Formats: sequence, structure tokens, C-alpha cells
Amino acid sequence: MSLPVDEAEHAARVLRLKAGAPVGVFDGRGGEYTGVIVSTDGHVSVRVDGRGAAAAEHPVSVTLVHAVLKGDKMDDVVRDAVMMGVTAIRPIVTSRSETSLGALARGGRVHRWRRVAVASAKQCGRAIVPDVQEASALQPAAEWLDTAGIAAPRLLLVEPSVEAGHTVDAANVPRPTGQAVALVVGPEGGWTPEEVAGLSEACTRVCLGPRTLRADRAALVAVAALFAVWGSESRLKAQGSRPKTE
Amino acid sequence: MSLPVDEAEHAARVLRLKAGAPVGVFDGRGGEYTGVIVSTDGHVSVRVDGRGAAAAEHPVSVTLVHAVLKGDKMDDVVRDAVMMGVTAIRPIVTSRSETSLGALARGGRVHRWRRVAVASAKQCGRAIVPDVQEASALQPAAEWLDTAGIAAPRLLLVEPSVEAGHTVDAANVPRPTGQAVALVVGPEGGWTPEEVAGLSEACTRVCLGPRTLRADRAALVAVAALFAVWGSESRLKAQGSRPKTE
Repeated sequence: MSLPVDEAEHAARVLRLKAGAPVGVFDGRGGEYTGVIVSTDGHVSVRVDGRGAAAAEHPVSVTLVHAVLKGDKMDDVVRDAVMMGVTAIRPIVTSRSETSLGALARGGRVHRWRRVAVASAKQCGRAIVPDVQEASALQPAAEWLDTAGIAAPRLLLVEPSVEAGHTVDAANVPRPTGQAVALVVGPEGGWTPEEVAGLSEACTRVCLGPRTLRADRAALVAVAALFAVWGSESRLKAQGSRPKTE
Repeated sequence: MSLPVDEAEHAARVLRLKAGAPVGVFDGRGGEYTGVIVSTDGHVSVRVDGRGAAAAEHPVSVTLVHAVLKGDKMDDVVRDAVMMGVTAIRPIVTSRSETSLGALARGGRVHRWRRVAVASAKQCGRAIVPDVQEASALQPAAEWLDTAGIAAPRLLLVEPSVEAGHTVDAANVPRPTGQAVALVVGPEGGWTPEEVAGLSEACTRVCLGPRTLRADRAALVAVAALFAVWGSESRLKAQGSRPKTE
């Protein structure tokens, strides 16, 4: 098999691999293999000789719906989310996002985040590259989430300053029985009151303790907390009678 | 009261606050106050007029013992650890740290991290500034941890590649009954086998799932996971009969 152009360049020019070098390759859809480079002339080809051992995927599939942040911070968000094991990333532009869909398109940002996702999957040992979807403008209503294909259950991450009424601590969010969830995270300036009101109709509001988290760390902290509370598949099996939704 | 020089500069030159401006001030040891600037001539003085509302501290006190990372990455580690609520940070130089105690001293790094800790406490709403201690060279033995004043229980964060034998998933680490714990995190290149062997005598080995985490995110993910699993004081009180050590 031949490597894609980006990866061939990386193998030949950055890593300076020659024919005969042992490599691990993955197809981004769960297959990971071991092999040997057979040629680096023009393109780089690999002879596959076995199955590799990719990191197991978490049984709960998380779609991260994340407001685009300033500067390059979204690169970190995508990289860290892939490292934590999310399944898909959906960038959104909210009222307080300091960018527009046009600016994202002109900057080729989604394409860039897809490359970041591939690099992060390689680094952390995942054989699946999460899907970075096209950016869209948030319309904070239940109907929008439905038509945008962001299925329930949905968790809306809110800051400590949002009134506590119906907000759940991440430590108390039950594991989704359908093994899939959307996590919706805002920009540096937070959600507008209208966004919180509109989204609260379709989401469970979740907070992460009393400290104000940086926008470029909130998703990472949320996924780490939720996965820890939900446990892994093997842990739940080992505990036998423990209900899956605790 | 007068503000310290750093903070006075920040208030007068960066924020451009004038006499009469309302401010929040904190002493770094838990006291947070509201007040009004009364003078910005030469030094900046504040008249305190009430108690402020700082973010509650987590009841479990975490001392983060962290190998110094390359470049400026330790700045992020300190900033994020303060944001997550750790109580103290102890930088160490390990076999695979690409620095030395001499280089850290010449670069004034500990002094820098202390300033990062103050800035992060302000940003996240904590009224306590964690203590960034002097850096020391790791000697991977139980005696060193004892003489260095790093009390048990101690959690040694290990990579997925370390053999599973006596390694506990973070989701299964019991809340420390003494409400204090040390978390020991290695550098980019990980621990040497000798370090793992020596430290394992004095620490519980903890892993964070099957993916390889970046060294500059491991502590953040670990604290997020542990605090979520341990729950907050108020949550435990609300649950009444739930044992504190689950």
C-alpha cells in the first residue's frame, strides 16, 4: 500500500525512514497494522505484515460541539479532544465567538483541524481519527440541534456564574444508556443568557466545580471528568452488579 | 492597603484603573475582599469595604510533584494545576528531564512559575495561591519521598505501556481518608524502569486509560478525573451514607 502524500512526506523527509524500516500504519477507521517500508521513490509504500495494537476506544461516543476560540487555540482543543477519545468534533460560531463562518472558510481552518486530528491520533495511539465536521452557526434552540443532527442526550457546559437551578455537577452526570452523548462547550466570553435559555431546553446543564476554567481547557477537563465517572467498559463488567447509569 | 509592585503595575498600566474603581483583592491565603482604589500615585492603594466570594477550595489537598518539561511547557502545567485546584506544586528533575537544577536556577524558573501561579489564581477565582516549591532532583526511593516531605498516600502516574500488574485506573482510586495526597507525574520521555521500580515501593501506580497522554496535559487530566471520582464535600454530604473513601 502507498501512504497518503502528507504521511509519505513526513516519513521520508521528517523521520527520514528508508526501505526496510519497520512502521505502524493505521487507516483512521479502526484498523492498525505493522509493516515494513519497501520503497521511498516518489511515493512511499509499505508492505503490511501484521495487525497492530491500537488503544481501545472508549465505549461512550462523545460528539464535542465546541465554539471556535481565538487565534490558534482551537488547534489545542482539537488535539486534546482527540487525545481524550472523543468521536467527532463539530465547530460552531456563537454570539461571542470572535470569528465568522466566512473567516473560517477563508482560513481553511476546518482542513487544518482535520490535520491536527490525524497528528493527535498518531501521537496518542488511537487507530480512529475523529471526524472534524464543517463549522456552523449556533442557533440556540432545540430544533436547531435536532436538524443539525446533534442527537440527545446533550450536555451543555456552563460556567460557575450561571445560576445553579438546574445545573448538575459533572460528577453526577449519569452514563448515557445509549452509549453516546453530545457535549456543547462555549467560547472565551461564555454563552449569552439567550443561548443558555435556548439550549437549556434541549440540554442538561453541567458545571465543573467552582473555579472558572480557561475556554481552551474546559472540554478536556469535562471529558476527563465524565469518562472517569462513567468508567470504562471493562471496569463496569468487572464490577458486575453496578448499574451502567451510575 | 497597598498592592504589591507587580499587581500595582498591572492595575495602573495594563488595566488603567483610576481612583474610585471597584476592585476585588485577595491575599493568596484564602481571604478575598471587595474594595475601591483610593490612589494610584506612585503606589496603588485600595480601601477594603467587604468580603468577596472566592471559589471554594476542594476538600482534598493535592500536592503535584511534577517533572520539569521542555521549553515553556511547565508554565502551562503550573497554570492548569492551579486552575484545577491543587494545593502545592513541587518541580522535580528526573533521569529523562532535559534540564538540570543549575539551569532552572539560572533561568529563575521557580520565580517565574510562582508568578504564573498568582496569575492563574486570579483568573480562575481562587483566593489561595498554591505554593510552588523549590525544584529538587528525584531520587526514586521511598526514603527520598519521606525526607523530601512528600507524605503518603502518593499516586505515581504511569503510561499505558507500563505493565499492568499493580496499576490502578484513576476511576478506581479511593478518596484519601486523610484528605491529602501527592500526585507524581513524569517528563516527556516518561519514567525510567529504575524510577518506576523505586517509586512503586512508595506509591500507588495509576493510569489514565489506554491512550498516551501528552506530558503537558497528564496532570490536568489526572486531577480532573480524580476530583470527579472523589466528588466534592457538598456532594458527599448530600449523599449521606456514601462512604468518603469510595
